Amino acid sequence: MRWAEGFIAVDWGTTNRRAYRIDEKSECVASFEDDQGVLSVVPGGFPAAAQSIRERLGDGPLLMAGMVGSTRGWAEAPYVSCPASLEALAARVAWVEPGRAAIVPGLSIRHAGHADVMRGEEIQLFGALAGGLIPRTAFVCHPGTHNKWVTVSDGCIGTFRTVMTGEMFNQLRERGTLSELLGGDVTTGDAFRDGVARGLRGETLGAELFSVRARVLLGDLARSAAASFTSGLLIGADMKVGLSLAAGAEMIMLGRPELTCLYAEAAAVADHAARQVDGEAAFLAGAIALARTLP
Amino acid sequence: MRWAEGFIAVDWGTTNRRAYRIDEKSECVASFEDDQGVLSVVPGGFPAAAQSIRERLGDGPLLMAGMVGSTRGWAEAPYVSCPASLEALAARVAWVEPGRAAIVPGLSIRHAGHADVMRGEEIQLFGALAGGLIPRTAFVCHPGTHNKWVTVSDGCIGTFRTVMTGEMFNQLRERGTLSELLGGDVTTGDAFRDGVARGLRGETLGAELFSVRARVLLGDLARSAAASFTSGLLIGADMKVGLSLAAGAEMIMLGRPELTCLYAEAAAVADHAARQVDGEAAFLAGAIALARTLP
Repeated sequence: MRWAEGFIAVDWGTTNRRAYRIDEKSECVASFEDDQGVLSVVPGGFPAAAQSIRERLGDGPLLMAGMVGSTRGWAEAPYVSCPASLEALAARVAWVEPGRAAIVPGLSIRHAGHADVMRGEEIQLFGALAGGLIPRTAFVCHPGTHNKWVTVSDGCIGTFRTVMTGEMFNQLRERGTLSELLGGDVTTGDAFRDGVARGLRGETLGAELFSVRARVLLGDLARSAAASFTSGLLIGADMKVGLSLAAGAEMIMLGRPELTCLYAEAAAVADHAARQVDGEAAFLAGAIALARTLP
Repeated sequence: MRWAEGFIAVDWGTTNRRAYRIDEKSECVASFEDDQGVLSVVPGGFPAAAQSIRERLGDGPLLMAGMVGSTRGWAEAPYVSCPASLEALAARVAWVEPGRAAIVPGLSIRHAGHADVMRGEEIQLFGALAGGLIPRTAFVCHPGTHNKWVTVSDGCIGTFRTVMTGEMFNQLRERGTLSELLGGDVTTGDAFRDGVARGLRGETLGAELFSVRARVLLGDLARSAAASFTSGLLIGADMKVGLSLAAGAEMIMLGRPELTCLYAEAAAVADHAARQVDGEAAFLAGAIALARTLP
């Protein structure tokens, strides 16, 4: 089987993509990241975009995850319903080049009043499991544009809940009443922790967010601290969702370190146990485990 | 006194302005609205912008309210602290042309962990009082880009709370994950009421908002109903703030009818008494009452 001789794993998101060459010993021997996300590919342009990846990392089979499998991507890889195993995911990959290029499906939840979807995080979650980075039963937070709170049970993804914290912060930062206040860096100091504490109280976000502006205007909050406070507010409200789902379990923050550290700090404010796991390592472990499991 | 012979009242906001000629019998005899809001006036351009109003509505004194009195406006009219009376507001107008052009100050709140500001709504609130449109003690909702929940006590504005519902909805509609779903009109049908009911439950907005997308993707919510549902979700969360402050009092929705009707419907979903009062009539009554009270 050609996959055993090595392959290319691609984390292909909306605005960026990262590609990794995995050799026959399951080692990552080359990689690159660029801004050729799904939205930058013209209709019908995915075969050529894939070819450009092979030109940079060498020929071989491609295993792709993320928004490349959405309706805006190369081909739709329909959602797999939770609870879902690695084997279920591997059985349902969408083959865009028979035997040579596959897209990992996303996951969906539909039950009693709750609907949710994920696409891209699932490979990191199964990688964290396959690589022994998290236990077989765990409660995981995957921060990003759309943070996911995920319940992992006996090696399967049981259920999850999305909170669009990153997107809300980016929108507030880019335009509108608060944008001029949010240009600063977000750091995990007192302002961030104060924001988390307020967010955890669960008051309507639209009211808490406007108070950021009022406090700066009235001199109660330093302008330079407004970005950290506001990030804390949103992450605190997000953490409230996490706490309601954690059932006391340790939280494992999985993803980019600059985001997992913010959620770990928010967990500390809530006096809840948490640790961080690197998302890139989990992605590679997930791609390798999936490639081995492909039908 | 020249003001008694008539004057021009201007509701001068961030993006629009409305100007009204009030005659010596306190009747509005002419008016216009245009897009020459505060942000469209070049630095130093306010005297000329005021002149253009007089050219259209006739010469006379100008009484202005709204963002024209902010740091981005003609001149800053510093906030008056609540509780505040009409007389306190009149005593603190900012004169930009001595005796000939005055800007109404906004109001601020600072107490135990809460800071808030308003600018522009206060003249409508005092107008509603002066015109007998609301009782001397009342609980008022003033929807808009930034909705205000206002407690009026014995003819004074006692306290208030801002929720940036309108701005959040506009941001979601213009860009990001939900924007392609929110192009439709907002109507007060079942989808709106379902959204209100969910918003009233008080779950973290970032989670509820993402579920709109998930529900459409999974076929649980019609794409054409997403705008109404999402508006309902945000207004329901906003209404939760109102209910916590109303202390059982009837809610009086004061403002533009296309917005007050949404909040009145949300109050009905919450089984709370509400009625609507037209904001333009209140603005005119407020301008006339203030002009009579000027020092």
